[in-house]
Amino acid sequence: MPVDALKFCSHCGSDRLAFRVPDGDMLPRFVCAACGTIHYQNPKVVVGCLPVWQGQVLLCKRAIEPRHGLWTLPAGFLENGESLPDGAMRETLEEANARVRIDALYTVISLPQINQIYMMFRAELLDVGFGPGAESLDVRLYDEADIPWEALAFRTIGRTLRNWFLDRKQGAFPLRLSTLERRPPPPDLAGAG
Amino acid sequence: MPVDALKFCSHCGSDRLAFRVPDGDMLPRFVCAACGTIHYQNPKVVVGCLPVWQGQVLLCKRAIEPRHGLWTLPAGFLENGESLPDGAMRETLEEANARVRIDALYTVISLPQINQIYMMFRAELLDVGFGPGAESLDVRLYDEADIPWEALAFRTIGRTLRNWFLDRKQGAFPLRLSTLERRPPPPDLAGAG
Repeated sequence: MPVDALKFCSHCGSDRLAFRVPDGDMLPRFVCAACGTIHYQNPKVVVGCLPVWQGQVLLCKRAIEPRHGLWTLPAGFLENGESLPDGAMRETLEEANARVRIDALYTVISLPQINQIYMMFRAELLDVGFGPGAESLDVRLYDEADIPWEALAFRTIGRTLRNWFLDRKQGAFPLRLSTLERRPPPPDLAGAG
Repeated sequence: MPVDALKFCSHCGSDRLAFRVPDGDMLPRFVCAACGTIHYQNPKVVVGCLPVWQGQVLLCKRAIEPRHGLWTLPAGFLENGESLPDGAMRETLEEANARVRIDALYTVISLPQINQIYMMFRAELLDVGFGPGAESLDVRLYDEADIPWEALAFRTIGRTLRNWFLDRKQGAFPLRLSTLERRPPPPDLAGAG
């Protein structure tokens, strides 16, 4: 049973929802026994960018949960009616009041355990008139040596930053496609239970 | 008001749903006046691949709507719990009974008007033991000269195929990122009404 379980049919209001494999399908879905509507649930896209200004990278300190107080690249859920580059620009404006020119798509990370696809673009910060939006406590430019590696909000962000600093040394930024599985348990618990 | 309008709250069953901008948000959402639940709706990912066997491309003739009887590359909605390459492999197996090795991500196409993101991989067909799955009428390998350009199911598929044949001549397949806006009206209707 998925975390985001439906209790009522959004089409007819019935509470007679079964979580079962519909005829001709391969996976269980919420199916309404009253009106027959099949409620599909699919992964969401998180879109964002890595804004660069004179070799420094712009990071945002989160003012919201999850990961309040930790640092992230500007990113958020892609909205209906929006292209990927437009979504990356919007999130950067909302979280950092920062204007960017969106460059190539850079990291694409599948997170099957939480039904998300991260899509991060490289970007050029157009001016330094940035500052925290409503969802950020602080926004700063970081040199590689000062990146708060131990205080990053998400593994996708750490992976994107590590790739970028390595690729910058090589002078090329090929698309980095990967999958992040569930974090392994800490060593002192592995094998227990 | 979006096409996929909610009539009842899936959390409490109330029909007191308003389509409005929640406090602190930027876009209208379905908000339940009874229990306060905000129902977010986001774009879906369509994932698939371009399977190649000895220079020929595998296409499927659709047995389902929309675009029944027209040709497509194997592709479909990414499922919860699935990585992008796994989704591309599953769709290819379901629609064409074909086994592939998934290669690089190749086209990423935003379709903001229908809230979809197409993500197509290059792929190597592993054997010729393919055949139509439940959603296909026919599955065939096509040389470039024989591609049924006038009978393709979706513009995303035509764009992916055109890019691929051009890039093959150049000997390189860079990621192709683009956005498809709504199809312009045919010339004889433009300006009418």
